[in-house]
This record gives sequence, structure tokens and C-alpha cells, in this order.
Amino acid sequence: MADAPDTPLLDTVETPDALRILKPDQLRQLADELRQETISAVGHTGGHLGSGLGVVELTVAIHYVFDTPRDRLIWDVGHQCYPHKILTGRRDRIRTLRQGGGLSGFTKRSESEYDPFGAAHSSTSISAALGFATANKLSGAPGKAIAVIGDGAMSAGMAYEAMNNAEAAGNRLVVILNDNDMSIAPPVGGLSAYLSRMVSSREFLSVRELMKRLARRLPRPFHTSLRKTDEYARGMTMGGTLFEELGFYYVGPIDGHNLDHLIPVLENVRDAAEGPILVHVVTKKGKGYAPAENAADKYHGVQKFDVITGTQAKAPPGPPAYQNVFGQVLSAAADKDERICAITAAMPSGTGLDLFANAHPERFFDVGIAEQHAVTFAAGLAAQGMRPFCAIYSTFLQRAYDQVVHDVAIQNLPVRFAIDRAGLVGADGATHAGSFDVTYLATLPNMVVMAAADEAELAHMVQTCVEHDSGPIAVRYPRGNGTGVAVPVEPKALEIGKGRVVREGKKVAILSLGTRLGEALKAADALDAKGLSTTVADLRFAKPLDEALVRRLLTSHEVAVTIEEGAIGGLGAHVLTLASDEGLTDAGLRIRTMRLPDLFQDQDKPDVQYAEAGLDADAIVRTVLTALRYNEAGAIARA
Amino acid sequence: MADAPDTPLLDTVETPDALRILKPDQLRQLADELRQETISAVGHTGGHLGSGLGVVELTVAIHYVFDTPRDRLIWDVGHQCYPHKILTGRRDRIRTLRQGGGLSGFTKRSESEYDPFGAAHSSTSISAALGFATANKLSGAPGKAIAVIGDGAMSAGMAYEAMNNAEAAGNRLVVILNDNDMSIAPPVGGLSAYLSRMVSSREFLSVRELMKRLARRLPRPFHTSLRKTDEYARGMTMGGTLFEELGFYYVGPIDGHNLDHLIPVLENVRDAAEGPILVHVVTKKGKGYAPAENAADKYHGVQKFDVITGTQAKAPPGPPAYQNVFGQVLSAAADKDERICAITAAMPSGTGLDLFANAHPERFFDVGIAEQHAVTFAAGLAAQGMRPFCAIYSTFLQRAYDQVVHDVAIQNLPVRFAIDRAGLVGADGATHAGSFDVTYLATLPNMVVMAAADEAELAHMVQTCVEHDSGPIAVRYPRGNGTGVAVPVEPKALEIGKGRVVREGKKVAILSLGTRLGEALKAADALDAKGLSTTVADLRFAKPLDEALVRRLLTSHEVAVTIEEGAIGGLGAHVLTLASDEGLTDAGLRIRTMRLPDLFQDQDKPDVQYAEAGLDADAIVRTVLTALRYNEAGAIARA
Repeated sequence: MADAPDTPLLDTVETPDALRILKPDQLRQLADELRQETISAVGHTGGHLGSGLGVVELTVAIHYVFDTPRDRLIWDVGHQCYPHKILTGRRDRIRTLRQGGGLSGFTKRSESEYDPFGAAHSSTSISAALGFATANKLSGAPGKAIAVIGDGAMSAGMAYEAMNNAEAAGNRLVVILNDNDMSIAPPVGGLSAYLSRMVSSREFLSVRELMKRLARRLPRPFHTSLRKTDEYARGMTMGGTLFEELGFYYVGPIDGHNLDHLIPVLENVRDAAEGPILVHVVTKKGKGYAPAENAADKYHGVQKFDVITGTQAKAPPGPPAYQNVFGQVLSAAADKDERICAITAAMPSGTGLDLFANAHPERFFDVGIAEQHAVTFAAGLAAQGMRPFCAIYSTFLQRAYDQVVHDVAIQNLPVRFAIDRAGLVGADGATHAGSFDVTYLATLPNMVVMAAADEAELAHMVQTCVEHDSGPIAVRYPRGNGTGVAVPVEPKALEIGKGRVVREGKKVAILSLGTRLGEALKAADALDAKGLSTTVADLRFAKPLDEALVRRLLTSHEVAVTIEEGAIGGLGAHVLTLASDEGLTDAGLRIRTMRLPDLFQDQDKPDVQYAEAGLDADAIVRTVLTALRYNEAGAIARA
Repeated sequence: MADAPDTPLLDTVETPDALRILKPDQLRQLADELRQETISAVGHTGGHLGSGLGVVELTVAIHYVFDTPRDRLIWDVGHQCYPHKILTGRRDRIRTLRQGGGLSGFTKRSESEYDPFGAAHSSTSISAALGFATANKLSGAPGKAIAVIGDGAMSAGMAYEAMNNAEAAGNRLVVILNDNDMSIAPPVGGLSAYLSRMVSSREFLSVRELMKRLARRLPRPFHTSLRKTDEYARGMTMGGTLFEELGFYYVGPIDGHNLDHLIPVLENVRDAAEGPILVHVVTKKGKGYAPAENAADKYHGVQKFDVITGTQAKAPPGPPAYQNVFGQVLSAAADKDERICAITAAMPSGTGLDLFANAHPERFFDVGIAEQHAVTFAAGLAAQGMRPFCAIYSTFLQRAYDQVVHDVAIQNLPVRFAIDRAGLVGADGATHAGSFDVTYLATLPNMVVMAAADEAELAHMVQTCVEHDSGPIAVRYPRGNGTGVAVPVEPKALEIGKGRVVREGKKVAILSLGTRLGEALKAADALDAKGLSTTVADLRFAKPLDEALVRRLLTSHEVAVTIEEGAIGGLGAHVLTLASDEGLTDAGLRIRTMRLPDLFQDQDKPDVQYAEAGLDADAIVRTVLTALRYNEAGAIARA
């Protein structure tokens, strides 16, 4: 590459084995080169930059101190793993990050033995690490498990559940808290580093263990008091009482960019007879790259950029993103209706709710990475007369499925779900592809499930949500930009359970739900050109189905095709169930359901993904022709 | 009632309004009468007893001090709410608890304005209460929200997520920690009661608030130190640091059976200008009823019983419960295979894993109410070569749906899911009815989904799970007892995706999944008697479908009916999708899918529930005859 940085030392380090034979005083240079290579690579590909730059030294130190891949290193979320990928045999492919056929933007088991557990959703690392540690304990294998988790991820309930269960893992488990928002404790200097080194030392731990053993022989109140005295005394100087209460031995905070601080502490932790230990490391997102350090979002997720200037490639001009249409429409609705509240789980800009937050800060709630709480909190708001909107990405709403069922649907409470990232998502890949929401929501009694075909529809559907007070309602819409239609200034609530016919024909009926409508219309043109007059309907509602419309379309056309951006069990299943319930198949019904395939699709350009999935105009035409037993030329292949 | 207790004071208290005009010295008598009435009622109906008895005084004290229903009282889980129901206008129906048409065994919004939020799953109360409190804050309404949550429920991540977000609610939110396992702190006496009263007093809180305001004007390190000094000083004397770290003002622990301790503290809390406050109350499950106090499970859930002796009605002798077959088979398998691990989320006996725990304590993990952690922990174990079984009830697995998708299915890790309480559950009602698991699991790529038709099948399916190392696999089975078939001593792994034909016929095909098989066979006899020769297949797998068998049955019979104990999107949807994918409907296919109806069914006897749902033999016969356009007499009604 023309702009590839000069990295003489990094060039000698293909895997952590090579790293571990370096001299300690070479590690600073290695980290510097690793940082330059990371910047260069993400400059080429775009992706997550700030979080990777924040853990360059930590990545070097962990691989230097621990025996990866025998010791299992688990990066929470995984978007900070680019430096790790460079150091673990994947440097030659690092400029394919997030591209079709290239490296994943997250950790991935199938990519490398150095990725023992894939991630992309937050807060799973401690549970997984505890699984590895426990398996080793049971089998007598020697390896440790190290989870690296950010302070934001600590707000999720599952991290707490895991910490609450961690004590049994003993010294096989190490949790490194990567505190890059300094939200848990203020940054600290040499004193804390000294203290951290001291309290993690074998001598200190031995004395402490001895004290604890003695204490256990005393009656319980004394035991508890002794333990608490130790804990609080250290907590007052060092913080971390929360973790101590949950059974961890807390060490920190230490400067996560200072290898002279990191390495001796991690060595102590590695060699400790006791555990589990939580090491609190303070880092800076975007560290070492001025444009990132100076940006408000620390270059969390970036387009391709120029490494010298930091200038990101501009997205081509186009229609607004669905998320921003949602935020604007909801904020405008809230101007007129003070019952409207908006809730996000740590995604204020990703959901477009930053627009709402600016206009209505008192009715905006960012609960952190806490989807379960978000939904039940919304249920409480609804039960007390508010009109809450829970804006959660499709795959993240999976985190709150029981709350949707138990707290919202069973009680028939009017919580509004704004489900972004529904369908395929391109570069983020399978973990972020919202494939299942129609299936898992439309199976629930009381639930209304809509999908927006374009941004104007989204506006109307948001208004439909506003006015629907009789029970829960959800609207799904995709990642990315709208189709360019005008967004209505005064959106109108739709009639619940009514679809619309977009194009009338005679022979073929395409029943579309959501954003495949454009492809359906293209396919209709192509079919018309072959003499197959085609109707296209936008059903709008997966539940309740527009039964009259479905019935009419199925019985008045030679073939009907449903299409949706979702897995089996969604619109197609509901249409087929209606058809069989009513005996429409008894005398013959030519119907096909087009849906996402039964596999997890890797990242790629969206168009490529749709083609792979068989959900574009060509695929619709093929499906219709095959169903009618036409060949591509339009002739009947067989009777 | 012959054995109804003498309750002169309680007889005057129909609602909390009447309670609040009593003199304080009458409350002890009221509590005693309420306890007797609770015991008497549950003696009649069976149900949850121990937890209700533990909160008799707390129930009286809360309604006495707070202005219910304007103040919103939310009982976590809700199974401790029988005394609350007696005091809130439902005493006349208390002997209908958990019966068809009677009172729910949990809180329920449709039952009473005193139940502002229904529950039955654990750990939702703080989130919901925060919703109520926040709505009031926004609208300027005066009411408070009080959540009463047990120490066990505190292990769930969503309780932590809620606490983490609670600070903004201020004094509108009160959380009462009902610590009946004394797992959080040892019981305490007068000193703690005195301290609790003191620290919850207005004077103390005012001084503290003043200190905090002063501190805020100092630079942050001083502010933090001051806050921590206060917190730790109180933590060392009183405990509760965890809650203080999460933003609560902690008061307690106090004796939850002593009204002279409870009432002044709750009055202080009610009148506090600051908050949120967490009141730590120590109670005893089964309190005041010797048979319950002396029982190991404190009469957590009981059959009808004799109030004098405490003797519970014996369940009629019969086949073993599915849960125990599961526990025995898995434990036996683990004797031979040391990779097998078993995980439960606080349901060791409910899942039958107590049997496993006795035999293999080192490979048994009770993670507490922490389903999310349970699943990802299992994924970690699987990734490190173990064979983990996650035994979680169908509706509780909804708590871990994202973990099933993201950590297990996407990574194709061989986690085994043992899904108890699949289908209708009788007296526990809609919140515990496992209606959605086939739909929400079978939509996932890589997932294998089985349903056991009887306990022998369950044994074989457990063995199938044991041997299935190539990806995730689930087996679902119902609440209650098996059918009485012999359980194989050496269960054999089934071929993945192969069903079995139980009965061969010619005209009608019934495709059954799971325990409706017995009804399918009964229906087949009835249909045969009408001259409709009937095939019955047990498909065993909802995913992967036995496509060859389905294809054959659909194309070689005049009518095919699928039946399953699950909502739309499950087996029926998958069979219809296969049929339409393959064009089997093109020339006519008479097929009907029988499934749970699109509503949440209230509690009742299982047989009544099945009849209501239309999932018994009669309903199958009706469905077949209607599909064939036969009338009940067997003649063709119309062509």
C-alpha cells in the first residue's frame, strides 16, 4: 500500500509467540507501530477505530503476559479487536475488514483460534470467560480466561449476573475493566499504579488470604466485619467496592496506555493464587491519533478516511437515514403531545433519538445498555398513562424478549417499539442483522407488527403508534437511507391491519412487507414485460394481517408471492396459515414465500447480501416464473 | 367455610382505606387475622404460601403508611400477594385462587386497581416502579411507586439495570428489599432498627443533603471522597454498600415482622425529601405457621392442605413428572460422560436437576435468577469442549433469547436446551405457559428443535442432545406427569430430523409434535370409526423437519392436520412453508394447522385449557371433518 506505515518491528511479529520473545523495552515501539497499522487499515476500510486505538497497549500487554491462545482472551463486543487481529496472524487480511469475504469487524471463532468466542453484542464476555474457566477447572486444563469489557458494557444486566457467579472460578478468571469513559472512576497516576502493583502482588495476596482463613475460623459476625474492613479500606483509597461486593478482588485503576504500569500488574494477576481478579484499566478512546482524540465520538465508527488529515470519505448525498426520519417525526409528534416519551438503550444517535433528546430532554431516557429495563420501564410509563416509544435495534430487542412478552404483551400495554436495523445490515454482518423480529413478535397475542416500505410510510407508522393506545405496537425499518420519497409534514395514522395495493394486475400478486417493495415493483415491471400482469401490495401489517386483502389477492391471481426481509415464521407463515385455515389451498393455490435463507449471512455490501438471500427483483421474477413453470424466456416449460 | 378462621377485625377491613383508619395498636391483631385467613385460603386452594406468610406484616404496614392505590405498590414475582389481595377488596374470592375463572395466583392489572402491574416472572418490579414514578414526575402527579422485591430476584440482571437507572426518580421511588433468605445480610435486632429509623429521619436526611450540596461546590475529588466517606461509614455499620453504589439511599436491615419497627421507618421513607430509598427488610418465609416454618421449602408452593396438621393433599399416584425423568436420565448419562454439565437458573428442583446435583455436584451450576448468564456461560463451556445442558422453563428462556441467538446459534455451539413447562401449564396461567419456544427457536439457523411426545421419547431426546456435538439443540416437554410408558434404561440417540409414523392409515394424516400425540391417537380411533382411515405421525423435530415424511404424508392422504402445543409460527408454519416451497399446494392440498389460539389463556385445569385452545381429540376430529366437509355424522355436507 502506498500509505502503509513503516513497521519494522511489527513486521517480525506474526503471532503472539513472536511477541512474547521481544524484550520489554521493545514493546513501546511495537505498540506504536501497531497503532499506525491500525489507523492505516481502518483508513482503507472504515469501521470501528476509536475503541481499537484505546486498547493498543492493552492488546500488546495481554498477549505478552498471557499464553494466548491457550489462555482464552475474550473481547467484549469485539469492535476493539482490530489490533488484536493484526497481532494474531490476520495482518495480511486486515485491509479486508468488514468487506465481503474479508475479516469480520468483530471477533469470530471461525476466523482464528485466537478468537475463542465471537461477540458483537455487548456484555457477554464475563459469562463466556466463566464458561471457559469452569471447563478448564473441571477438566484440569491449565488455561485462564481473560475478559476485556468496557465500562459501558458493565451497565447490562448480564454482566452483573456473570460477576455475581464468578467467584467460583477462582484465579482462572481475570476480568479487565476497560474504563474509557472514566465513568467509573477518575483517572489516576503513579500512586494508584503503585498501589495496584502492590495489592496484586503475591506477597500481599498471601497475607490477605491468610487473614481470610483466620477470619473464617471466627464466628460469622467477626468474619464478615474483617472482610468488610479490608474491602472498605481498599475501596476508600482505590474504589471498586461494587466489584468487591460481587466477589472480585479489585485492582486498579491503572493507566492503560502505560506499558510499564500494565505489564507488572498483569504479571501479578497472572501469577496470583487467588481470584477472580478485576483489573481496572483507564484508557482513552482514539488514543494516539489526533483527529480521533479531538472528535466528539472519538471516531467510534468511521468511513474510509485520509490518514494524514483524518478527513472521512463523504457519504454520497441522498435521502435521509430511516433513523433520522424516525427521530424527527417522533420529536415533532412530541411537540404536540406531552405524553410521548422516548427510550433508548445507549443508542441515542443510532436510533435518531438525539433529535428528540435535544427538543424534549425531560422525556428522553437513555438507560444505558439495559434493554430489559428499557422495555419494562416503558411498560410502567404506559401503565401510568404515558405514550412511551422504545427505540431498540431488532437484534438488541432480543435482549428484552421476555419483557416484551411478560410485561407488555400479556398486560396488553401500549408500549411502542421502534425497531431499527430490521433486515440485513451490510458490513456489520450476522450479529446485527435483524432477521427474527417479525417472527418473534407476530407470534405474540395482542401485538401489532408493522414494517415500513419507505420513509413516508415510516412517518405514518410512527403516527399510528402514537395514536394506538389499546395495546402494544411495533414498527420495523431498516438500516440505511430512505428511498427519497417526501416525508409527510403531517403524518396520518393508518388503519390497523389494513394494507394497500400499490399496483393492480391480473396474473401475479406480490405481497410485500417492508422495504422490499421497491424490488417488488421492479419485478412487476419485468413480469409485465413478459405478459404477466402483476399486482403489488404493501401489506404494511404482519399482524394483524389484512385478511380481506390477502384473501382477495390469493384467490384472484394465478400465483401469489410473499416477500419480507425476515426469517421463516414471519409474514409468509402468517399468510400461509390464513390460507390453510380458510381452506384456500384445498382446491389448489399457487403460492410461494420469499424470506431470508436459513443461515447466518456474513457481512457484505447490502445488494450482494440481498442477491445471496434471493430477495431482489431478479429473485422475485425467477420465483414467479418457476412457480408458473415458465422458463426465463417466458414460455411455459411444462404443464 | 367450616374451617374459616375467626377474624373480627379483618372483617371490617375491605380495603386499605378502612385499614388506614385503624389505630396503630390494632395492626398486630389485623396482621394475625390476615395470616390466619391466608393459611385458611391456601389450605383450600393450594398455591404459594410461604412467601405470602413472610410478608403479612409488610403488607399491612405498606397499605397503612402509603396511599394505595394512588401510590403504586408493585410486588415482584407476585406470588407473595395473597395477603395483599385479601386486603384489597378480593377477600370474597380468595378461595378461588388459581382456579378456572378465579383469582390469579399473581398480581394482575385486570383484577384490581391495587395491582398496577402484573407479575409472575421475577425481577421486573423496580423497572416498572421506575416507570410509574417517572410518569408521575413528568405529569406532576403526587403518587409514589413502591417495589417489593426478594433477595433472590436481586440476582437477575434486570433488577441491576433498573437500580442503575433509579437515581433520577428521586423520592418518588421506594424499593423494599424483602430479604427472606438472609442472603444479603445477617438478621439484626434493635440497634439496626434504631439506626434505620435514625438514618431515614427527615433531620438526618436534611443534614446529609446539606453536606452533599456543599460537597458539590468543592472540586470533584473532594466531592467524591466526602460521598464515599459517608457511604462507607454507613456501609460498615449497616451493610448495603452495593445499593449505595447504585445510587440508592440504603436503610436497614430491619425486622419485617415487627410492626413497631416497620411503620416508623416506612413513614420516614414516605416523607423523605430525598431518594430513591432502599429499605432492607428481613423476613422469614412461612412465618407464623409452624408446618411451613419447619418445612425445608417453607411451603413455597403447596397442594391443598389441612390447616391444623399442615398435611398436604397427596397427588394421585401416577407416572413420574417429566422434570424428574429429565433429571434422572441426564444424571445417568453424566455417570458415563464427564463432559456433561447441567445449569439451572434458580430452579434446581423444578427442573429435576436436584437429582443431577446430588450425583454430580461439581458439574451442576445453579446461577440464580440469571438466565442470560446461564446461556452464555453454557456457550463458553461448550466452546471449551464440555457438553452443557441448560435447563430453563420455556417462558424463562425468553429472558435469554438474545444469548441463544448471538452466543449459541450464530456460533453454532453445541449447547443443549432442556425446555420444561412447554405448552399450557394449568394453574400458573398465561405468564408461565410455554407457547412461543418452537416459533422463536425454529426460526434460528443452526438450531435443532425437538418435542417429546412422552417420557420415553424424552429419554431418547436427552440422549440425542448428549451426542449432538455439531450445534445447538433443544428438547421441549410439558409441565406435569408423563403418560406412564416405560422409561428406557439405555436411551438411544434419535436420527436428527427424522420423525416416526405411529399409526398407518390412508385418508387422514395427523402430524403431531410433542405431547398432543395421545389426543391425536384418540382422534384417529374416532375417525377410523367414521370410516376415515387415519395415519398418525410423531414428527419429533420441528427443525429440521422430516421433509421426506411430511412430503409423503401430505401427498398421500386426503387431508393433513398438524398439531402442536405452541403459537403460530411453529410446526404448522414450517410444514406449510415446506409445502408451498415445493409447490405441493399448487394442485390442491387439504391441510390445516392446529395450534394455540391467538390470546393469552387464563389459568384453569389443563383439560379445560386444552379444550378451550381447541387442541384435544374432539377438536382434531372436528377439524378433519370440517376440512373434508363432512358433518359430525360423517356424511359429506357439501362437495
